[in-house]
Amino acid sequence: MPEIKKMKLDWLGELKFVGKNERGNTIFFDVPIEKGGQGTAPSPMETLLACLAACSSIDVVLILKKKRQNITGLSVEVTGIRRDEDPKIYTEINLKYVVKGHGLDEGAVESAIKLSHEKYCSVGGMLKQVAKILTSYEIVEG
Amino acid sequence: MPEIKKMKLDWLGELKFVGKNERGNTIFFDVPIEKGGQGTAPSPMETLLACLAACSSIDVVLILKKKRQNITGLSVEVTGIRRDEDPKIYTEINLKYVVKGHGLDEGAVESAIKLSHEKYCSVGGMLKQVAKILTSYEIVEG
Repeated sequence: MPEIKKMKLDWLGELKFVGKNERGNTIFFDVPIEKGGQGTAPSPMETLLACLAACSSIDVVLILKKKRQNITGLSVEVTGIRRDEDPKIYTEINLKYVVKGHGLDEGAVESAIKLSHEKYCSVGGMLKQVAKILTSYEIVEG
Repeated sequence: MPEIKKMKLDWLGELKFVGKNERGNTIFFDVPIEKGGQGTAPSPMETLLACLAACSSIDVVLILKKKRQNITGLSVEVTGIRRDEDPKIYTEINLKYVVKGHGLDEGAVESAIKLSHEKYCSVGGMLKQVAKILTSYEIVEG
């Protein structure tokens, strides 16, 4: 059976919104001040980049742990380039993974990131059909 | 010049992550308990649905205000159907808008939602190339 996901979004006035999932977890959205909002929360297009980074990072953590790699930290810088015309979609997205751990195997890190983008990451599976997604990584000992 | 958006994502241990934009606004992610997380925040795929609803709702609010419609409330129920195979992308997304206001013109509401999905909404502009996006609306007086 296909899995069904549900969210409820409510307008909070100005250009602020709160989303809620079925477990009651919330997420807030706003628009930057220079675009008419109050800048109190990430915008939908910023959040979209974070969704991609988080979705792929879950894969990377799980795959590296399965491979018995001693991963102690992970951060991802994600950058999206939007086109000028409406709708202002991302045409290119860059993800730079900084993976920290004790004696991490470079091949394992590379293959975890590759497997995520080629097979598992659902957000990436959608966005890569529309934008070019580029990845790079750095390994930090510790 | 194309606009560039940046986010930084950091792993918080377990399957928890925090994303931060350039203004310092944060957003949290987790995985549901039944999938190995602790369920403290929406998952990336849930957040993706909220991004779509928020992106489009910003358009709807702005368009209706431009049309001098007295909109007093807006909520959106968004449902995504995922396919079974990896990557488990959404194949269909339904958005149900409940628009509240004083003497709202039905044509204005319908056209605001249509304009958002056909022209302005950047998140929708990406996702509609991959999934079928369906919309419906209800108008509530008050």
